[in-house]
Amino acid sequence: MSIRSVPVAPSRGELRPLGLDEVRITGGFWGERQQTNTAATLPHIEAKLESEGWLPNFDRAAEGTLPEGRRGREFADSEVYKFLEALAWEIGRSDDPAHEARLRRTVARVAAAQEADGYLNTAFGRPGQPPRWSDLEWGHELYCLGHLFQAAVARERTRPGADDGLLTVARRAADLVCTVFDDGGIESVCGHAEIEVGLAELARVTGSEHYARMARLFVARRGTQTLRDIEWGRSYFQDDIPVREADVLRGHAVRANYLAAGAVDVAVEDADDGLLAALRRQWRRTVATRTYVTGGQGSHHQDEAFGDDFELPPDRAYSETCAGIGSIMFAWRLLLADGGEQYADLIERTLYNVVATSPSRDGRAFYYANTLHQRVARQPADPEATSPRASASLRAPWFDVSCCPTNVARTMASLAAYVATADADGVQVHQYAPAEIDTTLADGRRIALRVETAYPAEGRVRVEVIASEGAWTLGLRVPAWADGARWRVPGEETQAAAPGLVSVHRSFRVGDVIELDLPMHPRVVHADPRIDAVRGCIAVERGPEVLALESTDIDGLDDVGLVTVAGDPVDRDGRVWVDVRTRGAADAPWPYGRSAPRTTEAVTPAALIPYHEWAERGPSTMRVWLPVS
Amino acid sequence: MSIRSVPVAPSRGELRPLGLDEVRITGGFWGERQQTNTAATLPHIEAKLESEGWLPNFDRAAEGTLPEGRRGREFADSEVYKFLEALAWEIGRSDDPAHEARLRRTVARVAAAQEADGYLNTAFGRPGQPPRWSDLEWGHELYCLGHLFQAAVARERTRPGADDGLLTVARRAADLVCTVFDDGGIESVCGHAEIEVGLAELARVTGSEHYARMARLFVARRGTQTLRDIEWGRSYFQDDIPVREADVLRGHAVRANYLAAGAVDVAVEDADDGLLAALRRQWRRTVATRTYVTGGQGSHHQDEAFGDDFELPPDRAYSETCAGIGSIMFAWRLLLADGGEQYADLIERTLYNVVATSPSRDGRAFYYANTLHQRVARQPADPEATSPRASASLRAPWFDVSCCPTNVARTMASLAAYVATADADGVQVHQYAPAEIDTTLADGRRIALRVETAYPAEGRVRVEVIASEGAWTLGLRVPAWADGARWRVPGEETQAAAPGLVSVHRSFRVGDVIELDLPMHPRVVHADPRIDAVRGCIAVERGPEVLALESTDIDGLDDVGLVTVAGDPVDRDGRVWVDVRTRGAADAPWPYGRSAPRTTEAVTPAALIPYHEWAERGPSTMRVWLPVS
Repeated sequence: MSIRSVPVAPSRGELRPLGLDEVRITGGFWGERQQTNTAATLPHIEAKLESEGWLPNFDRAAEGTLPEGRRGREFADSEVYKFLEALAWEIGRSDDPAHEARLRRTVARVAAAQEADGYLNTAFGRPGQPPRWSDLEWGHELYCLGHLFQAAVARERTRPGADDGLLTVARRAADLVCTVFDDGGIESVCGHAEIEVGLAELARVTGSEHYARMARLFVARRGTQTLRDIEWGRSYFQDDIPVREADVLRGHAVRANYLAAGAVDVAVEDADDGLLAALRRQWRRTVATRTYVTGGQGSHHQDEAFGDDFELPPDRAYSETCAGIGSIMFAWRLLLADGGEQYADLIERTLYNVVATSPSRDGRAFYYANTLHQRVARQPADPEATSPRASASLRAPWFDVSCCPTNVARTMASLAAYVATADADGVQVHQYAPAEIDTTLADGRRIALRVETAYPAEGRVRVEVIASEGAWTLGLRVPAWADGARWRVPGEETQAAAPGLVSVHRSFRVGDVIELDLPMHPRVVHADPRIDAVRGCIAVERGPEVLALESTDIDGLDDVGLVTVAGDPVDRDGRVWVDVRTRGAADAPWPYGRSAPRTTEAVTPAALIPYHEWAERGPSTMRVWLPVS
Repeated sequence: MSIRSVPVAPSRGELRPLGLDEVRITGGFWGERQQTNTAATLPHIEAKLESEGWLPNFDRAAEGTLPEGRRGREFADSEVYKFLEALAWEIGRSDDPAHEARLRRTVARVAAAQEADGYLNTAFGRPGQPPRWSDLEWGHELYCLGHLFQAAVARERTRPGADDGLLTVARRAADLVCTVFDDGGIESVCGHAEIEVGLAELARVTGSEHYARMARLFVARRGTQTLRDIEWGRSYFQDDIPVREADVLRGHAVRANYLAAGAVDVAVEDADDGLLAALRRQWRRTVATRTYVTGGQGSHHQDEAFGDDFELPPDRAYSETCAGIGSIMFAWRLLLADGGEQYADLIERTLYNVVATSPSRDGRAFYYANTLHQRVARQPADPEATSPRASASLRAPWFDVSCCPTNVARTMASLAAYVATADADGVQVHQYAPAEIDTTLADGRRIALRVETAYPAEGRVRVEVIASEGAWTLGLRVPAWADGARWRVPGEETQAAAPGLVSVHRSFRVGDVIELDLPMHPRVVHADPRIDAVRGCIAVERGPEVLALESTDIDGLDDVGLVTVAGDPVDRDGRVWVDVRTRGAADAPWPYGRSAPRTTEAVTPAALIPYHEWAERGPSTMRVWLPVS
């Protein structure tokens, strides 16, 4: 198989991913965001990596002056690598020479810092620094390298054989990891999973059996308690239970998802059905019991972790942007392995309601955590200052722990790779955006499609056949929420499209148009009663978007804590409206009493907004879950 | 005024506290717990301080071998001081020679570690340790000394002029603090408030103007941002807004309450009405918007902090034991300053539902955090091991941060000092327990009372006059929850007793009996709707006790997440019963849908238990807030 521009290239599985060389998003919701990403976010990140000193750390390493002047946390190197990965995808997408120059100058600085034996980390191993590999729990050395490997993979898959040297840097580091961590060496794992996905994909790019073996070893060792216990328990880094035995994701939500993604890679390559079954089981329970309606994961601020089943308080939602991206990585790998639109459903939900929520409209500020209920309209002390990681009142330009901006950037740049797949018999479209799809089936037949849609503003998706040979099958995802969806294939009546994958097998003609109509009326959803924190509340969804009530949209009301909603939401003038009852504040000296305080009420219609649009109009209060009158 | 055995001895105020020399608890709910405290908890603490190395740290300091072998966190010294304070009160209460020996040998070890200039801390100032006062944000040096001062005050007030040397140690340390931190010196504060209450009381015991001045300076400097900013903001240590200007307690809940208590001391001594008004205002809003139904405070695990107004999730309640004790310290000082049974109401609620919840029945295990909803019956890995601080599944014998056991011990030992007060005209009884009260009014008249009650098992309180001279006023607190209370004074009809303080002025005769009947039927309480996390739920209270539903009390049910309650709770056979509907688990692949899942239901009566009794019968699930069917 030729090299494809995909983040994940399993050697087997139900579906083959289509890469950036095969799918192009041409506009619409995600096209606009990709434009913002390339024009604003990537330069913003480069400027921050420079001004925060995280790129200069590499220069200091090359000059031999470290640890003096090193800045940033122990994992700061990884942001440079995620920036490189984002650039690689963006170059693959848009072939922008400015980004090519950015990538090359950044790789040169990274390469100059690599040591003779392949070691690469600016925080460890020099006189005055902790020794290499001395702090596997918190040191993040392998984590950083995992991101380096993903960057090198992205580069090799978009510009094979490029002479920038990134792949060589990655291979030298990976060879060192294999020397140090193989059986008989340091038989442990990194406190933050990531090396697993990185090695698995680097093995796929290079054909190295040793990298694949190390990925397998790191997955197998996880849960055997080789890491020290900590205050939050070894579940924090998933070292409590072997991956093969666990029933649910737990602990730090980013770590858990990154590990699960890497473990799917290993299970697929090894045809390890037991491991794959365990991961499917974990995914199912995590989605059923530990995921916010937005797709967000993680309800503990303290340890950025999953809570217990159904412990999903909206006002204390952590729902870290990076956990959402990790969840997409995990679900995407299961989709490729198994097929099944439930995985694409979660990806869509998470893209629209976590990944799209993080960056501001201008692409220069971000949410690290994504609360579902903002109680206080809190202005940051200094909007330009580097923020604590979980500040949630307004988006911030950068964080002390700034994993999310670079993670958003690499996801936006590679987004086309999550739109469609192929199998021996045809093409499946999983995500809807204006797009051009042009691929070759395994037997050599060329299939090309043009997708036109104003989704998610409208529910009509039009797929036109641009090139076709012989009979093949077109599959279109119908989201689980799309009850009442209909579709039409040429020469047939419009018919119901049941949630899942609807498909048509035929010899298409060029110019054939397949139309899918997804119902875009507002939907009221209720939560399982075990999610105690939202009892008596509804959420409103429209298409793939979760909606929210922001105080900005109610005249004279600062606090959405004082409202209830009555009746059903209605579509009017392109917006979704609810009737809101506003209570007068009834302050009592003690907030618990024999009956709920009697308050005056006014009723007013209020427009809901897509959750991802909130906090774009200044400090506000906001809630996704709306108490019912 | 002669020395009284009280923790707080303001020189002015509406009410004068009666000390351990004037009030003795003779049995009942609190008498039993005091017995457990003296017989089990205090020896347990001594053994732990020894085996954890926190007492031996002082020996190493005296030997000059530190920092080698120092164990425990930077504030470990403070646990030794709280242990000393607890011993001092306990000796005042029970005159136990074993405790006297414990105190003397412990003081000797502490005194041996004090440096020539009065400095005393085992974690700072020696070669190989950070310099003295170099880390005011996290170092806890002044915090530790505040507890040393409180211990010395307790000793001097229970055994005036004792030759153990504790007061001398405290004065030498306090003199050093005055030298180092007065204006022109280090013009800052300690990251953890406590030195303020310690200095204020040491000033009262010694008459030192300089200590009083330092307490005033520390309170005045707080909020002027002399501490470095941190991830959670300066509000964490209340250094965001001057005490005089703040509207509500915020940040770390223990720090906030300790600071507020010390600030009341300063305001009272200085007759600083503006400061006192600010503290009253903060107390009112904190109680109205940031306090759990148990009296617990603090809803953030991450920073052990208050959340926003009405952000009170029961399953993520932090409600630290020490925050409850701090809240009692704050409320008690306001009660003495202003009078007002709202303060005594909160103290009672917090005593029964936070302080009594922390220790196990055997007095050798504790809760650090006090959750209101336990979702998973989680067995600790090793019940005997030192636990992370916020483990909430079962009580633990000790913690890495073990502030709560010693705090409970000193509170239990001094509890009689919170029962009653006097003013020029008579005596006020605020807390009900079998007790003997014997005091002298300011004009020299002796008043003695005997209180008999089975409270809180029963609501009858019988106050017998044992000694009396002339006409005076007896006041009895009627809790705010006690709607329908009645009382009877000799020679009069039984009459309604409205919440607040009911009082009778007369020339009592010896043998006169005043009876108060508090209604002890179960009460249903609802929460302000802005407390989103408990919407659609009720809590049940009985007398001062908040009740809880524990899975142990429902046959075949492990998860109280699956129940709702129907109808009103009823008293039967001395227990409170509710009809519980148990849903079958209706697991869906996605927990959000168009309607709540349909489930089968069974109805069964279940007995509620006092919240403070939970988790005494093995791992269980538990909830205070009960969803209504």
